[in-house]
Amino acid sequence: MREIELKDLRAIFRKLKPERVVLVTSVDLHGRPNVMVAEWFMRTSFEPPLVAISIGKTRYTHKLIKESKEFVVAFPSSEMVKEVVYCGTHSGRDVDKFKETGLKIREAKFVKAPLIENCILNLECKVVDSLDTGDHTIFVGEVVAAYYKEGAILLEFEGWFGSLEDFKSCCAKF
Amino acid sequence: MREIELKDLRAIFRKLKPERVVLVTSVDLHGRPNVMVAEWFMRTSFEPPLVAISIGKTRYTHKLIKESKEFVVAFPSSEMVKEVVYCGTHSGRDVDKFKETGLKIREAKFVKAPLIENCILNLECKVVDSLDTGDHTIFVGEVVAAYYKEGAILLEFEGWFGSLEDFKSCCAKF
Repeated sequence: MREIELKDLRAIFRKLKPERVVLVTSVDLHGRPNVMVAEWFMRTSFEPPLVAISIGKTRYTHKLIKESKEFVVAFPSSEMVKEVVYCGTHSGRDVDKFKETGLKIREAKFVKAPLIENCILNLECKVVDSLDTGDHTIFVGEVVAAYYKEGAILLEFEGWFGSLEDFKSCCAKF
Repeated sequence: MREIELKDLRAIFRKLKPERVVLVTSVDLHGRPNVMVAEWFMRTSFEPPLVAISIGKTRYTHKLIKESKEFVVAFPSSEMVKEVVYCGTHSGRDVDKFKETGLKIREAKFVKAPLIENCILNLECKVVDSLDTGDHTIFVGEVVAAYYKEGAILLEFEGWFGSLEDFKSCCAKF
């Protein structure tokens, strides 16, 4: 192994394929839902059941979660590549991603952010803590309800969509 | 999709295969190194480069990181299944996992925790913040040095090793 420069870390992480992502839904003050694609997710407690997501401070979802203190994490299935790529390359400030992708949503029980149909797992989360971490914020969410879809296969990417070139090469594969 | 009981969440997460893990090294007050297997890892900032790991409060590594405020995250390659399974089913309180597995280590530049040879990516991390999250703690580490091994393939598990039965079925596959 060879030492790499820290400025190259972002590119190196992209080589750790296949990539995995989750969808994160949230709502604005008027209840309008949005969805983003996030790679930076982990669980962080069994009891109580807690999950953590890192959201970039400039992202629209960051504003929405900070205001509403709620979000839903949904694990996309292998059939949702196009929808996920679209959501990962557009901002909810500009478009209604649900309308554009046709992703079907369902009302959650305890939070205003919607569930996404056809995902393998949907987790309704209430923010219980947060931590400022550089250019992102970690939001810690307590899972207050969960939904599972039997038989679906988790989406894994061979390509990524952080740049236009990556996006094109990713689309070309599917 | 159907709603599930929150007590079943742990079992449901195990169905989201393949599983991915990282190795986390740390040292005790005498400089003796240990390594654990962690699933709950994410990045959390581009600039500065930060990563986050959730470590169970009862784990030996929790004590070591809390004391030393340093750790290394290493991404195992597909050739390291047996070593990873061993590390994931034994505690550094009882055994020297490096000795038992034959995992080769290399001195890090800025932290006392060792690098692991043959891993795809090694990240030297200094703890810059932490957050109490239920039965775990999130440690946020700033990456102060990184090492990459070209051409290796990331380890992905079809089985997991949280229980003896899982461990046996996992070993049987390799």
